[in-house]
Amino acid sequence: MAFSYSRAVYLGDTDAAGVVYFAGVMNICHEAYEESLAEVGINLQQFLTNSTVALPIVHAEVDFFQPMFCGDRLLVKMFCKQLSSYKFAIDYQIFSAKASTRLLAKGNTIHVCINSQTRTKVDLPESIIQWLQAFT
Amino acid sequence: MAFSYSRAVYLGDTDAAGVVYFAGVMNICHEAYEESLAEVGINLQQFLTNSTVALPIVHAEVDFFQPMFCGDRLLVKMFCKQLSSYKFAIDYQIFSAKASTRLLAKGNTIHVCINSQTRTKVDLPESIIQWLQAFT
Amino acid sequence: MAFSYSRAVYLGDTDAAGVVYFAGVMNICHEAYEESLAEVGINLQQFLTNSTVALPIVHAEVDFFQPMFCGDRLLVKMFCKQLSSYKFAIDYQIFSAKASTRLLAKGNTIHVCINSQTRTKVDLPESIIQWLQAFT
Amino acid sequence: MAFSYSRAVYLGDTDAAGVVYFAGVMNICHEAYEESLAEVGINLQQFLTNSTVALPIVHAEVDFFQPMFCGDRLLVKMFCKQLSSYKFAIDYQIFSAKASTRLLAKGNTIHVCINSQTRTKVDLPESIIQWLQAFT
Repeated sequence: MAFSYSRAVYLGDTDAAGVVYFAGVMNICHEAYEESLAEVGINLQQFLTNSTVALPIVHAEVDFFQPMFCGDRLLVKMFCKQLSSYKFAIDYQIFSAKASTRLLAKGNTIHVCINSQTRTKVDLPESIIQWLQAFT
Repeated sequence: MAFSYSRAVYLGDTDAAGVVYFAGVMNICHEAYEESLAEVGINLQQFLTNSTVALPIVHAEVDFFQPMFCGDRLLVKMFCKQLSSYKFAIDYQIFSAKASTRLLAKGNTIHVCINSQTRTKVDLPESIIQWLQAFT
Repeated sequence: MAFSYSRAVYLGDTDAAGVVYFAGVMNICHEAYEESLAEVGINLQQFLTNSTVALPIVHAEVDFFQPMFCGDRLLVKMFCKQLSSYKFAIDYQIFSAKASTRLLAKGNTIHVCINSQTRTKVDLPESIIQWLQAFT
Repeated sequence: MAFSYSRAVYLGDTDAAGVVYFAGVMNICHEAYEESLAEVGINLQQFLTNSTVALPIVHAEVDFFQPMFCGDRLLVKMFCKQLSSYKFAIDYQIFSAKASTRLLAKGNTIHVCINSQTRTKVDLPESIIQWLQAFT
């Protein structure tokens, strides 16, 4: 089941071309990811400060189909996929909330689980595996 | 009556000191302003593209009382004040949503109304005056 | 010949994980693109306001190999490639300025040339073709 | 003696109003601060990770006089002032590099020195006092 995240476009997301700055679309995707973690009780702050593991992004990409304007209401649909014992991918589809079949952009991030100190690959923690299963 | 805006702190808001980057607090304030405009039906995009007037910020300031961490839920309270026929101020109070008496930061922006082409001061449009009255 | 762009990592680029926020790497790539345009005399502001054409990004991706920390000095190498009469790609390689063989990340953006009003594809302007040839 | 920092305006700094987003001006000021620290050999990354003290901003403000456009070259002049044993202020003046008497904006940040763990006020470290004296 996809996770859904609703979000307006704010002036700070846009650039002088009058639309959302391309890298800003990545921010919006990452917010959906963070909200989905919160939904299953994963506190990112505790993860950042108390965890022995980190989940850095090793790849990110976005395809842009339609411009997004200030004040637009967006709907982000997010789907997870476990790729290995230490790696997962997230697909993002960004729609206009008004016309939910109109795909504005789609994104993808790949994350690996590493030991925060040694930065070597380690298995995904159980909490992340459960989150992956919740939003597959 | 104040306008209230609720918002999580996202990783993209934070910096390597582990808390919200100081300029990011300004973004959060501006989002509250944009949501309050939307609340009374003012479409910022139309304002940006079709309006003969613009409302640039001429002054902005923030006092930071407590650090804000990734995942924190914030409550922004926003109050408007008309200062003259062409100028208004907005006060922002940022609280922790969990402890709504705990003031984390307060901000202030001053906006002037100008002709978009000549950039000379002009009177505030009626729609903005009504918005000012709604959230005073 | 590649275009080279040198840049420090600032606190505002980083996040609470202590490294450059993933979408911030895209910003750094785009700055290199903008500096390369300036190098051949293309003024992006005139392009944004007076041009009948726009060059939106239709695809962007980044691979992250090593974390980048606040204060790090980066060297971005940028290579262009014309893909068709209306499309071009840019490859970015981000190195540590201290160890210029150490690839920290690589990025890619694909841009199409469109008519600003109709948003239909049009041929790349001569100035962009010359810029593409300069930094191939 | 003031510290000078030169910087172009990038698309990512701007918003759909066609000029630098107000909070982006704060970023530019903070970059000047970081470059001035680097100039006297203070490594912000070491400060963030190995230091027992932190220097959070407790107040920030900007006055905006003229819009800044994509591609503009800016010159930031920065002046420090020690306010007490644990507090200092920085004044920023942002000029157009082309017309260095044309003040586009001015900013101010106030920083306090705290113990990173207890978050109580402590005296400024000697390295910061020397930096303050260098750019007063």
